[in-house]
Amino acid sequence: MRVLMIGAGGVGDAAARIAVERGFFEAWVVADYDLSRARATVAAAAARRAGETRLVAAQVDASDEAAVAALAKEHGATHVFNAVDPRFVMPIYRGALAAGASYLDMAMSLSQRHPEAPYEKAHVKLGDEQLAMAGEWEASGGLALLGIGVEPGLSDVFARYAADHLFSHIEELGTRDGANLAVRDADGNETFAPGFSMWTIIEECLNPPVVWEKARADAAGGDVEAGFFTLPAFSEPEVFDFPEGIGPVECVHVEHEEVLLMPRWVDAERVTFKYGLGEELITILKTLRTLGLDRTDPVSVKGVQVSPRDVVAAVLPDPATIGPMMTGKTCAGLMVTGKGKDGAPRATYLYHVSDNEETMREYGAQCVVWQTAVNPVVALELLATGVWSGAGVKGPEAFDAVPFLELLAAPKPEGYGSPWGMEDRTP
Amino acid sequence: MRVLMIGAGGVGDAAARIAVERGFFEAWVVADYDLSRARATVAAAAARRAGETRLVAAQVDASDEAAVAALAKEHGATHVFNAVDPRFVMPIYRGALAAGASYLDMAMSLSQRHPEAPYEKAHVKLGDEQLAMAGEWEASGGLALLGIGVEPGLSDVFARYAADHLFSHIEELGTRDGANLAVRDADGNETFAPGFSMWTIIEECLNPPVVWEKARADAAGGDVEAGFFTLPAFSEPEVFDFPEGIGPVECVHVEHEEVLLMPRWVDAERVTFKYGLGEELITILKTLRTLGLDRTDPVSVKGVQVSPRDVVAAVLPDPATIGPMMTGKTCAGLMVTGKGKDGAPRATYLYHVSDNEETMREYGAQCVVWQTAVNPVVALELLATGVWSGAGVKGPEAFDAVPFLELLAAPKPEGYGSPWGMEDRTP
Repeated sequence: MRVLMIGAGGVGDAAARIAVERGFFEAWVVADYDLSRARATVAAAAARRAGETRLVAAQVDASDEAAVAALAKEHGATHVFNAVDPRFVMPIYRGALAAGASYLDMAMSLSQRHPEAPYEKAHVKLGDEQLAMAGEWEASGGLALLGIGVEPGLSDVFARYAADHLFSHIEELGTRDGANLAVRDADGNETFAPGFSMWTIIEECLNPPVVWEKARADAAGGDVEAGFFTLPAFSEPEVFDFPEGIGPVECVHVEHEEVLLMPRWVDAERVTFKYGLGEELITILKTLRTLGLDRTDPVSVKGVQVSPRDVVAAVLPDPATIGPMMTGKTCAGLMVTGKGKDGAPRATYLYHVSDNEETMREYGAQCVVWQTAVNPVVALELLATGVWSGAGVKGPEAFDAVPFLELLAAPKPEGYGSPWGMEDRTP
Repeated sequence: MRVLMIGAGGVGDAAARIAVERGFFEAWVVADYDLSRARATVAAAAARRAGETRLVAAQVDASDEAAVAALAKEHGATHVFNAVDPRFVMPIYRGALAAGASYLDMAMSLSQRHPEAPYEKAHVKLGDEQLAMAGEWEASGGLALLGIGVEPGLSDVFARYAADHLFSHIEELGTRDGANLAVRDADGNETFAPGFSMWTIIEECLNPPVVWEKARADAAGGDVEAGFFTLPAFSEPEVFDFPEGIGPVECVHVEHEEVLLMPRWVDAERVTFKYGLGEELITILKTLRTLGLDRTDPVSVKGVQVSPRDVVAAVLPDPATIGPMMTGKTCAGLMVTGKGKDGAPRATYLYHVSDNEETMREYGAQCVVWQTAVNPVVALELLATGVWSGAGVKGPEAFDAVPFLELLAAPKPEGYGSPWGMEDRTP
């Protein structure tokens, strides 16, 4: 396997540090718009393993499909791994296809809200642009594995596992994410510093959240597409009790890939995603919306053109750099309700907790980016070893969950040493 | 009198429309960085009076002291009237002095917080840079009349009036400002649109508010400067009941010029300024501070350099343009407590209310900018007619309040037809 990873931000950097401990690939090209950043990632990752020579740095403009394809061909990439923000999904996706490489990402092509009823009807949904090219990918024989980070990603693997091994009937697949992270500045005062890209947080939290219901799909003759609808941002707050000491966090609906992926491969009555934003972040997001600072179209400011959302992201600390100032844990998981294999009511929370102290100590990566980065590396290993295989456009729930969960949890050096958990929450 | 007005934003535009109805000046030059904006103001103002030829438009860079002086000389300006935001106070102030013209502004030179104890000790205060040049102004024979908008401005005139005509001893001079303004978008939904420059709102509301106490000054041997101290932003919330149907509004300490001006000319135990920000604006300001979007130093955003605070101001509607979407009234006033001329306890609120419906109908100007703009025009008329005169650097409270208040309130065409009020609030 020869991997071209595009993006040496927080997640790309952590993925390289994780991957370098594994033997499944022959080459791992780290490409970034900023070559010095790519080189820094290569240096930091290679330093983790004596005599490491498989990593090389390259420069690429991720918005340029032809440049992506050319770079993939130049390095004989068998897999293009997209680790930049979702604005660049389509050129990388098309570039990989053009180069005859397989493709993996951790966030899907962006949505567009319904022009008349943005908070009721779905319009262009997350991943729609990618799914529309399913025929081309099948014809090429290549695989596009969409949404294989932690959420989407591990949450989708949990959905497959629940359907295959725990439940006979699923009422709701409800991804629930919460944390007790805190970031302190040099003076020890708690400060606001998001764990991942503020651009993406604004995008997913202010967009109308999407929900899927089988009853709506059935009413349209079983058309999966007809099951999607939207709600206002921050809808249906719910206090969810997270494990391993994190405790109760208020969660609200957020637009997220799981809702788009799970109904296509897993049978359920309802699919939702709720994120434990917390009061401070909700206030910040509402204020940005009120002021129009969530806008992505450029405004003219004293003679220069800038996108207000880019300015918001630019004034905040780089999520890749906040690890040393951060304490706490983050939990990604899937709450599944329905009937167990025995037909009795069942509610189970499948989850994965990442502790910042541990990820900083072992990888020099903050816990949110580390937790995102480990999953695509596990998936690449399963593809490299042939445990997972296929062609076309697929979500993580299209594959057998068991080898993934085993490889993730198994102690090093066999596995990745990152256990997941399961809590019975049957009332 | 020949006036050079610098700035054709909301306040400058309204001032020209107000002034053109008066006969006290021979020339009124409207200068702006954007010549087309200056021309639009001249056209709109001149159209209000048949055969009007006294207004001309000019281009100027307000940050360029020499350019200001040259323009003042070119037009033989006797008075330079600064109607731009307070970042440009010093070059305009110095340019006027260099040109031998008198000077008026509505906001004073900016403060700098104390490096060690920003929320306890005053450091470089509002107007300090200007007051430091008092000797030069006295020597020149010219007058610099600082802070002659509505607040500071009319509030300071009220202080002089209270001291001369209502009180024998003043406990507190407390400026209190509140409004019931609402702005609706094209769909009729209430929207956030500040009544004056968001740059200035951020500056004055997030800076440590300053308070003056005579006891502190006395403890330092009667040194006025020693009476100033600071508090954290949004300190000491107080619900103040505003007149003419506005009603109760929560007010908090805000850094404002009155606190710096009044103690220098009016005898009082304590001088404060509280502004009825309201919950939404306080949340917005706290969020901007949390994110660092209040910063004025440039950040690098995808290859361009911008000041985050300029971006915040740029995404919001121009305060000059929101009049047609606005409803409600704004109230500027001074709450005075102490002992009346008879020695008995007295509490009086002196105030001026501006109704958006009225200012839009009569001047095409929204009420907050109109209320700011009318006062310097009244002052210019008093200076033109010799009713007010003097040299050196002075605040509005250095002059007799009665002719000002009479001219402001007298019906047109004798006066400006804008009455002020007085409410007894003795407990």
